[in-house]
Amino acid sequence: MKNVEHIGIAVKELAAAEQLFSALFNANPYKREMVESEGVATSFFKINETKIELLESLSADGVIARFIEKKGEGFHHIAFETEDIIAEMKRLQEEGFILLNDTPKRGADNKLVCFLHPKSTNGILIELCQEIK
Amino acid sequence: MKNVEHIGIAVKELAAAEQLFSALFNANPYKREMVESEGVATSFFKINETKIELLESLSADGVIARFIEKKGEGFHHIAFETEDIIAEMKRLQEEGFILLNDTPKRGADNKLVCFLHPKSTNGILIELCQEIK
Repeated sequence: MKNVEHIGIAVKELAAAEQLFSALFNANPYKREMVESEGVATSFFKINETKIELLESLSADGVIARFIEKKGEGFHHIAFETEDIIAEMKRLQEEGFILLNDTPKRGADNKLVCFLHPKSTNGILIELCQEIK
Repeated sequence: MKNVEHIGIAVKELAAAEQLFSALFNANPYKREMVESEGVATSFFKINETKIELLESLSADGVIARFIEKKGEGFHHIAFETEDIIAEMKRLQEEGFILLNDTPKRGADNKLVCFLHPKSTNGILIELCQEIK
């Protein structure tokens, strides 16, 4: 794992959250992106090298909506950039971590991604990612 | 805010969590520190420029123990490094954020710190920090 690529935050209302985080960071989001495959609308801030990704569910029964229902708004996941996502997935599986997808899938921000099950990681949803070149 | 200085993760048992995160990161923690004032034992990993801080409560009624009781193990806070913590506290207070301490206090890792109330930040406990020189 090379670095913390981004931190994902589940929010109920993206527009309101954008205002709040703009005030917090004293900076505006630099991009918005719909990720239909994940059922989310996202908004990205950048603090030096780390991105903060706000995530709003596109539907009432989407994964983010269900997360908020259970845990409330807040930290959703942390994403680590990898040099070689397939090699890293293999290594982690061998270490006993549970992968949520067997092959990398396409995520937001032009990335291949794979999630690890929070059950195997002290309650933390971890994303591995690698930029698509 | 200059950068994401660290991400704090609440764990029940530091030794077990250290093993798990060592396997995850393929690296060992680079330091351990007791912070009596906060009632926590901590262990630090570093992924490029970002630290991951594991936090175990020193007592059954400590702030981390109570957090885990309520929310389970997992993300606890995110810390942003500031150039001038007092100026940043003043700016954020004026923006309407609720500070959990009026003056910076001494935290782990040789830092002055101030926390923002999660009520004012979409459920996210945010730490401002500045290295003591």
